[in-house]
Amino acid sequence: MADWLAALDRRADLRAKAGLTRRLHARAADETVTDLAGNDYLGLATHPEVTAAAARALSAYGLGATGSRLVRGSTDAHHALEDALADWIGTDRALVFSSGYLANLGALRALVQPRTLLVSDAHNHASLIDGCRISGAETVVTPHADVTAVADALAAAPGRPAVVVTESIFSVDGDLAPLARLHAVARRHGALLLVDDAHALGVTGPGGAGAVAAAGLAGEPDVVVTATLSKALGGAGGLVAGPAEFVRHLVETGRTFIFDTALPPAVAAGVHTAVGLARAGDHLRAELAERAARAVARLAAAGLTVSAPDAGVISVTAPGPEAATAWAADCRDRGVAVGCFRPPSTPDTRSRLRLTVNAGVPRADFERALEVIVEVAP
Amino acid sequence: MADWLAALDRRADLRAKAGLTRRLHARAADETVTDLAGNDYLGLATHPEVTAAAARALSAYGLGATGSRLVRGSTDAHHALEDALADWIGTDRALVFSSGYLANLGALRALVQPRTLLVSDAHNHASLIDGCRISGAETVVTPHADVTAVADALAAAPGRPAVVVTESIFSVDGDLAPLARLHAVARRHGALLLVDDAHALGVTGPGGAGAVAAAGLAGEPDVVVTATLSKALGGAGGLVAGPAEFVRHLVETGRTFIFDTALPPAVAAGVHTAVGLARAGDHLRAELAERAARAVARLAAAGLTVSAPDAGVISVTAPGPEAATAWAADCRDRGVAVGCFRPPSTPDTRSRLRLTVNAGVPRADFERALEVIVEVAP
Ligand SMILES: Cc1ncc(COP(=O)(O)O)c(C=O)c1O
Ligand SMILES: Cc1ncc(COP(=O)(O)O)c(C=O)c1O
Repeated sequence: MADWLAALDRRADLRAKAGLTRRLHARAADETVTDLAGNDYLGLATHPEVTAAAARALSAYGLGATGSRLVRGSTDAHHALEDALADWIGTDRALVFSSGYLANLGALRALVQPRTLLVSDAHNHASLIDGCRISGAETVVTPHADVTAVADALAAAPGRPAVVVTESIFSVDGDLAPLARLHAVARRHGALLLVDDAHALGVTGPGGAGAVAAAGLAGEPDVVVTATLSKALGGAGGLVAGPAEFVRHLVETGRTFIFDTALPPAVAAGVHTAVGLARAGDHLRAELAERAARAVARLAAAGLTVSAPDAGVISVTAPGPEAATAWAADCRDRGVAVGCFRPPSTPDTRSRLRLTVNAGVPRADFERALEVIVEVAP
Repeated sequence: MADWLAALDRRADLRAKAGLTRRLHARAADETVTDLAGNDYLGLATHPEVTAAAARALSAYGLGATGSRLVRGSTDAHHALEDALADWIGTDRALVFSSGYLANLGALRALVQPRTLLVSDAHNHASLIDGCRISGAETVVTPHADVTAVADALAAAPGRPAVVVTESIFSVDGDLAPLARLHAVARRHGALLLVDDAHALGVTGPGGAGAVAAAGLAGEPDVVVTATLSKALGGAGGLVAGPAEFVRHLVETGRTFIFDTALPPAVAAGVHTAVGLARAGDHLRAELAERAARAVARLAAAGLTVSAPDAGVISVTAPGPEAATAWAADCRDRGVAVGCFRPPSTPDTRSRLRLTVNAGVPRADFERALEVIVEVAP
């Protein structure tokens, strides 16, 4: 019985020896660190209009939603947010979940019928992978961004329902999936396309409507969009957007929708305000793009291996997991927060620093942070 | 391609014919309905100290956590809450998730090793069922609250690691699992016990510490507790509490912990204040118990079939799904919100009204609501 705890300790020791220990670091409200690690791409999490809207809803509704969406959890704030999201993204309807993770689990499960084949990109996020798994459907993992491999997988399953599953802006390396080509291939085979727009919503597309909208695919009847409300929108929660029939199906049968407490109304209200600011935020997106380009130029000039970012996520190769951990720790000691991604959280065996652009960080701090990253590079 | 939407419509029609349509009803901030449907058992969601604490954290930290717990999402508010939860429940450590659903998925997966057998109660919540499924482990479903069946399942798998999985207060019928006997059986076979204390935390046990604490099992090395922060604590989020080695394992390897944005700091801060109020809330628990007994007496006197509640959840049998829907709608028209549970959201084929006691509702309104439920009964 005590054995299992000893076994967990042995596994922790093995991780420690491989440089793969993970530790929680709490930040204080008054920390002075420069953020190149979070996903608050437009700086909206601390925008005074966002927090004011959340504070108003907090005193109007209280803290929690007090129930699942179908019982007591639906408030005017949720419905108004859903209308705003559908209008922005350009789909029939949008449905809010308590997290992007549960939105992905719910969407995938609801898309699967008997004999469905899922075709999933090798770099997909854990929540998409778990969604494929929990759906019970046969899943083919195709090499990253490989449209030909997707076409081959679909061609090998003629007459079967199929769903092509991809992120738009990939969360680790920041590259954009070939959405238009994936959609063309999916349509040719009568398959559906599910796109997780988590890192693109608010950041790319017309009025920040995301990469699916940018590719002109948002209203298509064979496309389903998922996303999180916790990145460019600065809040929390998830969404599924698509045809009205599909959203209705999720409301009536989606387990992670039905059996889960609704998002707190104050969060829904704050995110609703953030949607308005994001739509009007072309200046923020221009600033973000400029900074991403600036970061790549500076880091490459210092001889570092940097990804070519399509949005606000930049990946910098580290020599190994210990070096990545030490690099990130040195940055933190110098007042710069960066992401440190090591296996198994990376789609390959490479460790990286993951830098994210937050347009709300003062420009001088951002520039100084780039110098710190270069100075303490291994 | 448009076929799939037509197929979804056909399934919606079938549900409608069976009386199983589900519809979202948004509530307004100023609604005057009496709540016998939500899970805000102690009335803390709207407690002024809870919303004030959340509002302070909102202006201190902003709305969203801006990242996962290991990247940017851990704040002092999260760590303080985790310490308070562990101290209250009586475990080594507690870890906060963004929902109870994801806490259950994460805990179950982390408990499973090669060859593990899961023994799961037939009335378990969807999140536990999905957790069993996503873990990939062989799962035996035992009849509800049947300790002998659990013992038999464990005896049939000698030498294999095993986990007994149960709720404490069951979410549909409100009955309490035989926790002490389940633990004795599990220990005899060297198995672990996972208890989802969602509907008991804050409501039962010493200082509201939950049903696991009430059974004297909270600090045991072979017991893991999960719960949600969205019911008696009036907020949102989930928790896993147990031995330090297991919590460390979750931090370092738990997919639904690592790859998910942290709970908003304002929610963590509000829930932390709610923990203090719940601990000091013996008067609220006494009121809740009295009302539950009062409800059972009144409804039984009217000839209705009522469960024997062990906490704040009361189940009233309805003749069928349409009758349940009509009953709940009539209650709502008369200003009373009640839960309406129909298959497949019930563990059997019975439809019910589910009533929940909210100690924060004025007593006169609660009494009037019982009369409404009786008057409009089918
Ligand atoms: C691509 C992607 N999908 C889904 C999620 C999950 O969203 P959430 O954090 O709201 O659960 C994340 C990040 O957290 C993500 O990066
Ligand atoms: C028994 C039980 N477990 C888990 C959950 C899920 O918790 P959450 O709503 O925080 O996801 C619920 C209800 O929602 C529940 O009733």
